[in-house]
Amino acid sequence: MKAAFITAPRTFEIRDIPMPSINDDEMLVKIEACGVCSSDMSGYLNTGTHHPPFPRRAGHEPAGIVAEVGKNVKGFKTGDRITGYFADDCYAEYVKCNPSDRSARGHGSIIEKIPEGIPFEHALGEPLMSIVSITRTTTPEFGDFVFQVGAGFMGLGIIAGVSHPKLREYIVADLDDSRLALAKELGATITLNPSKVNVVEEVMRITGGRGVDVAIEVVGHPPGIRMVGDVLKNNRGKIIMVGWHQAPDTYELFSWIKSPIIYSPQGIGMSTDYQSELVRAMWGLEKGIFPMKRLVTHRYRLEDIDKAFQDNLNRTPGYIKGVIIPGL
Amino acid sequence: MKAAFITAPRTFEIRDIPMPSINDDEMLVKIEACGVCSSDMSGYLNTGTHHPPFPRRAGHEPAGIVAEVGKNVKGFKTGDRITGYFADDCYAEYVKCNPSDRSARGHGSIIEKIPEGIPFEHALGEPLMSIVSITRTTTPEFGDFVFQVGAGFMGLGIIAGVSHPKLREYIVADLDDSRLALAKELGATITLNPSKVNVVEEVMRITGGRGVDVAIEVVGHPPGIRMVGDVLKNNRGKIIMVGWHQAPDTYELFSWIKSPIIYSPQGIGMSTDYQSELVRAMWGLEKGIFPMKRLVTHRYRLEDIDKAFQDNLNRTPGYIKGVIIPGL
Amino acid sequence: MKAAFITAPRTFEIRDIPMPSINDDEMLVKIEACGVCSSDMSGYLNTGTHHPPFPRRAGHEPAGIVAEVGKNVKGFKTGDRITGYFADDCYAEYVKCNPSDRSARGHGSIIEKIPEGIPFEHALGEPLMSIVSITRTTTPEFGDFVFQVGAGFMGLGIIAGVSHPKLREYIVADLDDSRLALAKELGATITLNPSKVNVVEEVMRITGGRGVDVAIEVVGHPPGIRMVGDVLKNNRGKIIMVGWHQAPDTYELFSWIKSPIIYSPQGIGMSTDYQSELVRAMWGLEKGIFPMKRLVTHRYRLEDIDKAFQDNLNRTPGYIKGVIIPGL
Amino acid sequence: MKAAFITAPRTFEIRDIPMPSINDDEMLVKIEACGVCSSDMSGYLNTGTHHPPFPRRAGHEPAGIVAEVGKNVKGFKTGDRITGYFADDCYAEYVKCNPSDRSARGHGSIIEKIPEGIPFEHALGEPLMSIVSITRTTTPEFGDFVFQVGAGFMGLGIIAGVSHPKLREYIVADLDDSRLALAKELGATITLNPSKVNVVEEVMRITGGRGVDVAIEVVGHPPGIRMVGDVLKNNRGKIIMVGWHQAPDTYELFSWIKSPIIYSPQGIGMSTDYQSELVRAMWGLEKGIFPMKRLVTHRYRLEDIDKAFQDNLNRTPGYIKGVIIPGL
Repeated sequence: MKAAFITAPRTFEIRDIPMPSINDDEMLVKIEACGVCSSDMSGYLNTGTHHPPFPRRAGHEPAGIVAEVGKNVKGFKTGDRITGYFADDCYAEYVKCNPSDRSARGHGSIIEKIPEGIPFEHALGEPLMSIVSITRTTTPEFGDFVFQVGAGFMGLGIIAGVSHPKLREYIVADLDDSRLALAKELGATITLNPSKVNVVEEVMRITGGRGVDVAIEVVGHPPGIRMVGDVLKNNRGKIIMVGWHQAPDTYELFSWIKSPIIYSPQGIGMSTDYQSELVRAMWGLEKGIFPMKRLVTHRYRLEDIDKAFQDNLNRTPGYIKGVIIPGL
Repeated sequence: MKAAFITAPRTFEIRDIPMPSINDDEMLVKIEACGVCSSDMSGYLNTGTHHPPFPRRAGHEPAGIVAEVGKNVKGFKTGDRITGYFADDCYAEYVKCNPSDRSARGHGSIIEKIPEGIPFEHALGEPLMSIVSITRTTTPEFGDFVFQVGAGFMGLGIIAGVSHPKLREYIVADLDDSRLALAKELGATITLNPSKVNVVEEVMRITGGRGVDVAIEVVGHPPGIRMVGDVLKNNRGKIIMVGWHQAPDTYELFSWIKSPIIYSPQGIGMSTDYQSELVRAMWGLEKGIFPMKRLVTHRYRLEDIDKAFQDNLNRTPGYIKGVIIPGL
Repeated sequence: MKAAFITAPRTFEIRDIPMPSINDDEMLVKIEACGVCSSDMSGYLNTGTHHPPFPRRAGHEPAGIVAEVGKNVKGFKTGDRITGYFADDCYAEYVKCNPSDRSARGHGSIIEKIPEGIPFEHALGEPLMSIVSITRTTTPEFGDFVFQVGAGFMGLGIIAGVSHPKLREYIVADLDDSRLALAKELGATITLNPSKVNVVEEVMRITGGRGVDVAIEVVGHPPGIRMVGDVLKNNRGKIIMVGWHQAPDTYELFSWIKSPIIYSPQGIGMSTDYQSELVRAMWGLEKGIFPMKRLVTHRYRLEDIDKAFQDNLNRTPGYIKGVIIPGL
Repeated sequence: MKAAFITAPRTFEIRDIPMPSINDDEMLVKIEACGVCSSDMSGYLNTGTHHPPFPRRAGHEPAGIVAEVGKNVKGFKTGDRITGYFADDCYAEYVKCNPSDRSARGHGSIIEKIPEGIPFEHALGEPLMSIVSITRTTTPEFGDFVFQVGAGFMGLGIIAGVSHPKLREYIVADLDDSRLALAKELGATITLNPSKVNVVEEVMRITGGRGVDVAIEVVGHPPGIRMVGDVLKNNRGKIIMVGWHQAPDTYELFSWIKSPIIYSPQGIGMSTDYQSELVRAMWGLEKGIFPMKRLVTHRYRLEDIDKAFQDNLNRTPGYIKGVIIPGL
């Protein structure tokens, strides 16, 4: 079977390797789609410090078909269409997994069946269950002003999950006007482009000088951190810090002092209720709450995985989320 | 001016008394409307134990016009249309109040201006700010199953405040089919009449045997308490106990043991953020979230206040909320 | 091996049965001690509704030695001294259990090794991890007034866990003066006997009329429920409802309306962190925080289990907790 | 009367000015002591951006005697010994204040009487009520491992408030061995000096590789922020961010991603319960929980205020907290 190996910085190589063999507790899964995640980039670029030596593999947003089932496995059978979190080497034609493993990355395997009618390339359980986890942590209250900075794939998913008509306003800031337009379709009521307006002043004007009740940061860079602190009301406000702040940088944290609670619900292993969050994600998919047709913008063959990573790195116009499809 | 006095059990008398005189910290308010609240009934029936001697007065859901302003009062002027909580004797033509009093019933005066275009009889700030407080306490999460028993005025207001499209189901139980029909208009997705179906079995069937995430009791009697415990999921579930359980009665609390958290947000003085809740209530009124046109079903002259109380006690068909209008 | 069977109301019979045989995922445990729990009484008396037919077995507070280990079991070996929650039929010489079972009673098996130097009859992991769970839920804040009604085994354990010198007062009410004396040794600062003083009036006097910040009910009967509501401060107070309210009864819930939050941390399956709570319980045992020497007052042979149950039911003077010791 | 004015960077001038005159709502207070707070330094150095023009005044940690009372003032009389937060210009012989003002710095005046027997120079209500607020927010649970970095005045006060015998360990890191020695007297169980040991490695060793449950940062500089993230356990851990991060700097936030909740309880106006926190602070003073005799290390005449500020800036050996005493 074919599998993608990062053999050097910015270089994938597709190699032919033996099929994984499974034990009684495991199952073999044929990968039909695997999402490209921005957190994979540091292993590809070889920045950061926690990577195994080359060649290394990646891919943790799988959707696929159960191809073979160990005799101790309960709840799954050959032919089941599944998604969730169950392996870290899913840029490949097949992977094996252990559905009862409780130790993987702090929470273990989380697997659910894909609802009928949802194509594999949209059934990306891993990022969707994270979005649901962040959404549940965020849960604003009746009449709250909500501010969010960042409208990429995660940010748009969060808007889709969090927004509803009993909130006062859902203000979204992003540098890309096309993403802001999509943010509005998904539930944002006001959008602001920091290259055109002073976002903090605008938010203060909108809220009558009071600031917002909930501020969500989905950027991963210092300006996002500062912005959520600057627009937050005094007292009782909360910050949701979603961005993946991988590198040391120059931050201003002073405005955070007025935020009594900051939630950081993004990291793998943060939720203690992921199974339920994957169930809720599948419901949201079926219900059309998460419009993956609009968010999954690019599909790639396994052989084109370098191109997929470069599109992610270069923020190619129109790119929101790419998916590797081994069978394409 | 005229004011209503309870002079004996089940007996109001309208008396002519001098206008209240105000000091420098107070203002005089002309009452344009005052809601009839079920919690007034025990003072009318003379049941319960905490009442002052006859004759006694009542009325704590006022809306009116500022008629005179003490020289120390800030933020209000003659002619302002106001509502909120500021006096307990509002079944009358005029009352006085102290806007800066912080001691009244544990939270002090809470006053906001009525949005333009909202008639006084709909601008009942006191019950609406309670509904907002309960709504904020309830705030369910993405994909939650919500169950509520009780669809009277408070119950319907809570449905209007809490429901939105990112919840899995909003199941409402009540004995009155016309109220259930209104519950559906306001956001309930499934309605159940306990006189026709076994509510607990139905809810268990709907949730796949798992139970609901949030269960709201707005009844005030033992069957409501038992029902919310019986339909709640194990672990992580929460009960919102809104009912006003005034009398000792035979309760079964065993099923509550599986509910880790029970919130009781109803009592006056429970919130530490009422001013904001009244602001949010006024926004909800203006936005049409609280459809008072449908909920305020009966209007009475001050002289007909006995009739108003009897309609409330008798659950007259079609009655949801009555309002006393001194100027009618 | 010998095992105790409830063959009729109020009747145990010791029968000789084959040793349990284990599969690859299970282990065999020799029971060295098993606590007698008040919640076992309804199965013994045949009151309540959820019991299996006679003969039935019981015993869920085991401590013992691993006698045999299935080949898939990880983390345990023959000879390990263990405790926790792993079986429901522990009034016997041997039981089997599956350490990786995640489904038992909503939380699965929770097992830890017993610290050196702690005798089996004191190492009752199951009630101690419940006490730790309740203690963590209760966690009062600096300067809080705490009130607790009920000083039986659970109540005394909770005092031992919750009390510390940065609390304003820890007031305990119970009808038994010897238990109140022990409560004082474990951390109570004021004790009140409701047969001698008006507890609510005393608490109000002690708190300057304000009421307590946290009120813990460990009684299981209506007077406890009413008392915690009556002594609680308005607003921001919390009630911890630990009592096991098994039967319908006449309750007064009105004073609960002033309690914004009621926690009910007692039920099995309530915590999502039991493994950590058992670890903490073992630490507390070793540290002497839970003085089991004072709390385990009665030891019984397996053959005398009827006597053990009757001592529990009769509240025999001096009885706090009984333990069945098959090898006695 | 005399008052201290900052007339230029690093320069105080004592000027003779007229006594403040009070209106009916105000009272005049003779300042007996006023704490020197590190947050005053930026106004003294003229760094940061939010300062009024020179000459400017300061001093927000007053204790004094009521000298004159406006006729509308309730609850205070001439001669009362008071402390709390009621003015921002307390480096002076007299200040005026309005006890019923609800708007000052987001929470209004918070005043309590000083317990008998406590000298003014120890009765610093403002920092003590902040310490109580932080302590209540921190409140660790039974068996928790607690880590704190920073053992200056605030840090030592937090140790005194938070520590108790039902915690697993209370580990404190600071660069100053004499402060670490004091930390141990106040409740720390393990102390670590980062100039001598690798703190993160040590904490990981102490906790068996698991990390701590609660990590408190009382430093205000990037290494503190990183350290609390690095020692925190995965999942369910909480960070308490107390440091006053006034300037942009190079921060590493990556490890915060594993902390689901970060509390920032330090800022003025953060608590919604300061009055109660000042009451609790006075109780803690009286009880000896806050050993001000050990923490207030330096006393200065009003004329020596420049020296006081320089000792604070220079971290003079032995200096923990300085107090200005106008009558010295």
